[in-house]
Amino acid sequence: MNKYWSEIVGKLTPYTPGEQPKVSNLIKLNTNENPYGPSPAVLMAIRAEVNDNLRLYPDPNSDKVKESIADYYKINTGQVFIGNGSDEILAHTFQALLKHKSPILFPDITYSFYPVYCGLYGIDYTTIPLREDFQIKVEDYAIANGGIIFPNPNAPTGCLLSLGEIEKLVMSNTESVIVVDEAYVDFGGESAVPLIQTYPNLLVIQTLSKSRSLAGLRVGFAIGQSHLIEALERVKNSFNSYPLDRMAITGAVAAFADVEYFEKTRLNVINSREKLANDLKALNFEVLPSAANFLFVRHDKLSASLLAQKLRERNIIVRHFNQPRIENFLRITVGKESHCQALINTLREILG
Amino acid sequence: MNKYWSEIVGKLTPYTPGEQPKVSNLIKLNTNENPYGPSPAVLMAIRAEVNDNLRLYPDPNSDKVKESIADYYKINTGQVFIGNGSDEILAHTFQALLKHKSPILFPDITYSFYPVYCGLYGIDYTTIPLREDFQIKVEDYAIANGGIIFPNPNAPTGCLLSLGEIEKLVMSNTESVIVVDEAYVDFGGESAVPLIQTYPNLLVIQTLSKSRSLAGLRVGFAIGQSHLIEALERVKNSFNSYPLDRMAITGAVAAFADVEYFEKTRLNVINSREKLANDLKALNFEVLPSAANFLFVRHDKLSASLLAQKLRERNIIVRHFNQPRIENFLRITVGKESHCQALINTLREILG
Repeated sequence: MNKYWSEIVGKLTPYTPGEQPKVSNLIKLNTNENPYGPSPAVLMAIRAEVNDNLRLYPDPNSDKVKESIADYYKINTGQVFIGNGSDEILAHTFQALLKHKSPILFPDITYSFYPVYCGLYGIDYTTIPLREDFQIKVEDYAIANGGIIFPNPNAPTGCLLSLGEIEKLVMSNTESVIVVDEAYVDFGGESAVPLIQTYPNLLVIQTLSKSRSLAGLRVGFAIGQSHLIEALERVKNSFNSYPLDRMAITGAVAAFADVEYFEKTRLNVINSREKLANDLKALNFEVLPSAANFLFVRHDKLSASLLAQKLRERNIIVRHFNQPRIENFLRITVGKESHCQALINTLREILG
Repeated sequence: MNKYWSEIVGKLTPYTPGEQPKVSNLIKLNTNENPYGPSPAVLMAIRAEVNDNLRLYPDPNSDKVKESIADYYKINTGQVFIGNGSDEILAHTFQALLKHKSPILFPDITYSFYPVYCGLYGIDYTTIPLREDFQIKVEDYAIANGGIIFPNPNAPTGCLLSLGEIEKLVMSNTESVIVVDEAYVDFGGESAVPLIQTYPNLLVIQTLSKSRSLAGLRVGFAIGQSHLIEALERVKNSFNSYPLDRMAITGAVAAFADVEYFEKTRLNVINSREKLANDLKALNFEVLPSAANFLFVRHDKLSASLLAQKLRERNIIVRHFNQPRIENFLRITVGKESHCQALINTLREILG
């Protein structure tokens, strides 16, 4: 290894995000972005903030964003942590709350950044297999652990765990933190946020990248009792005082203010998902039940890698994970009606 | 300690940034922001980017920013690393390049975030006292070390180390990385960037927050040989794929394109600094020689804490560090001519 590198650097296997193509003639269904733009009120608010004040540091605590989120969820601002996208919050969470003597637990099929964070911070982990039907069963997590983390709905399956099951897990696992990563929850799940008032060991993480259409702005947040938030604040303030820029602060506040636009666009996505699921089933795809803005599907004849390649040749990008158990699945982001229709038409052509 | 906290959390002493007041009737000379707004071309470019594309993730590699910086410094893009402000880059640098068996070295009086990063990543350090005149002497660093880091010009003193001295240090210390933190270099220093072609152990870090007037946008960069940059990329891609949002990428590119505005505003700041230094000397302040956009000064009679308090009562904020050796100094950001004049008038009034 390079003598200048710290020991950890040589051991890292960094995360590979989905492709962000630099050409624009593609139907991009590979990184679960929202097909609708952000609220027009968000764009107006950001534009108004593009002025000489950019010479000044932003509020290091993003207090206005904390207030917006606290209002929305009827909690207090000391229960909210803000970060530069939920990926940054996940990183701080691994370092601040999931690094203990026992290994942490997460599903074998889940957000593939989790083992990367473990590598970065030297955290042991054990993966718990999803059941045959790709569902999480909370009973499977009843073993000693340094923490538990999973997305709900899970990624890349889209499968949802009910709030009742989450509460069972949180009640039975009182000695370590349970992190519920709710990146996709607004597309059909029930948030675990109300449970934080009762349970000191629950942290909920969300993002503005999906249901709020602001992947390009980088804002995420975590909600939990103040002692968990304090751990995150201590790490954040030892890492970077100013994680959110002025545009991101302004845009996030405006996004939470426009509830009507949020409700309308998320319902559009949900409706498109249901139609797309039916259309895919009609083409002999197995479609896992999804509460997210994507579908996880496999065809009964064609391999996922071949399908992904043929779609790409026809200017449609979807995501394929070359990984045990799911190598025959494709993850397809729910686009606008017209994108979904183009996908179905193209698949019909490919499948003959 | 809270049972849910990782061991490190209880030991952290987070960094305290300078106050970002939420009222606007203050003359803010406490956090070394540029008194001039960003280039008008930057504001135009950002405004044009506030559109539906915010629903899409940004380029995770900020390639356009890398190209702008590579063009500016006549290096290649593989020698450039981009981060969410130079504080984030410093954090990654401590983890990726400064964590070794031997303690790292930095001055006793310097950017107070350095020991905080050491706490976050469990890095031992030894501080090397500045000489009596508050200068760095490179001979003092000729001891075994896991790395060396210092700002040039140094903060909060403003004192500059010549390029020749830096080269001497880099040549003599080949077994570990030397990090030169050039946040303020455009206000009177000579950048060490040209030395990176010769020396594999030199990393230079800069920010767009000071001379480019973009503290509110959060963009920093590091320059070094590709093997050092690779270490940072590996850590970054194990931490957060998308550190810069779309506005920051666009604004940073536009900032490097407008060389004329950059030159004009930095010269204005330099001229104001020289005048302010003379005016302060006339009021019996000792003024350390500064190559930055701030002055580090002490009065021959009044204590710095009292002066800071009296200025604050009169709506002027400056920075006071209650720390051995410098407890009688104030760090004063160079404002516009009118701010400097208001400061001098107010000091005259206070000093009677």
